[in-house]
Amino acid sequence: MAAGEGVKLIGYWASPYALRVEWALKLKGIEYEYIEEDLPNKSALLLQCNPVYKKLPVLIHDGKPVAESLLIIEYVDEVWKEKYPLLPRDPGERAKARFWAKFTDEKCVPAVMATFTSQGEEQEKHAKEAQENLKTLESGLEGKPFFGGETIGFVDISAAWIGIWAKIVGEIVNIKLVDEEKMPLLCAWLQGVLENPIIKDCLPPGEKLLEHNRGFHRMLTGAAST
Amino acid sequence: MAAGEGVKLIGYWASPYALRVEWALKLKGIEYEYIEEDLPNKSALLLQCNPVYKKLPVLIHDGKPVAESLLIIEYVDEVWKEKYPLLPRDPGERAKARFWAKFTDEKCVPAVMATFTSQGEEQEKHAKEAQENLKTLESGLEGKPFFGGETIGFVDISAAWIGIWAKIVGEIVNIKLVDEEKMPLLCAWLQGVLENPIIKDCLPPGEKLLEHNRGFHRMLTGAAST
Repeated sequence: MAAGEGVKLIGYWASPYALRVEWALKLKGIEYEYIEEDLPNKSALLLQCNPVYKKLPVLIHDGKPVAESLLIIEYVDEVWKEKYPLLPRDPGERAKARFWAKFTDEKCVPAVMATFTSQGEEQEKHAKEAQENLKTLESGLEGKPFFGGETIGFVDISAAWIGIWAKIVGEIVNIKLVDEEKMPLLCAWLQGVLENPIIKDCLPPGEKLLEHNRGFHRMLTGAAST
Repeated sequence: MAAGEGVKLIGYWASPYALRVEWALKLKGIEYEYIEEDLPNKSALLLQCNPVYKKLPVLIHDGKPVAESLLIIEYVDEVWKEKYPLLPRDPGERAKARFWAKFTDEKCVPAVMATFTSQGEEQEKHAKEAQENLKTLESGLEGKPFFGGETIGFVDISAAWIGIWAKIVGEIVNIKLVDEEKMPLLCAWLQGVLENPIIKDCLPPGEKLLEHNRGFHRMLTGAAST
């Protein structure tokens, strides 16, 4: 089923994890077939390609599946080395890039998600943690316009969606998570990433994404979102 | 403070995360200065080298720190490419290796830890999850003696300590987590890794490790361990 040549991506339009892989493929100019997954009715193809996690995105390259979004991006960067390198060449800089992408997934995502799914005092606590972690993420910029330096790289495509998502969550739960005054560098960085024509062209429509997340919020909390 | 040439490793004798980095350095034959951290009184050097997580291990190479054990191993493998490669060359195989190392840290470690720190029905539930995840880890061997094929590689040094630790936890809480009958391949693999002279030579003494974990268990649960 997964057989066949070429590059295929199993994604879902509102999945930020799939989005970061799409950005990687687009920046590299790799042609691929996009397969929209019918969530929550997971396809046989997805289950076959990622039997451990049963999650998207999955990249299928010449019939072989690769799972886990950050690992897919590393894979893409290794296979198509010369086209728009995403990770730096220097091992120390590569370790730093991996560190911040991991930090995004392990510290920023759970804190924003916990803010999204909680209420009251609990929510305030998680929101504070999310703000602190985003502020720490900002420190990784080290004053550069992008984590990748002058151009968008591995951390930028891995972390940008958390910026988008934190803004959406902030709007839904009515707590500012990405604060221009407290995180001016992070905000400028996010704007810079989203202004890139390739990234911009590949973003899901803002209103549709907000509505989708409002629905998700109602489902998770049973609350009428503001 | 972190300045100076050469390779230094901030570790702690009973830290499995530091141990996997030591294994990587030893397999590659890299000379390094080992700095034993005085836990829980974290040193200024550690806090300076890993200000985000404040955790060991940290590798300091020519004055530059690298944090997070799996990222350190990738760094070591990239800097000392020719000496005993730890990750496979093929990008698909590299993605697979990263997948299983990540699975170990994200699925096996938390389930074993939860078994260690809980009691009663809660503990049974976590133990079942730990066993299932270890069984899934076993599937990653794909019938080979090591995850790395015929020789010990990235996943082997990343995952072996969870085997050791799961056995220790099993002994302390009196639930068999690594079962020879249910996971014969995983048990044979673990034995194979631990029989490697370099790995063996670098293992903390078994009885001391068990006693240390018994103390840790008492501290966490307030229970008299069996």
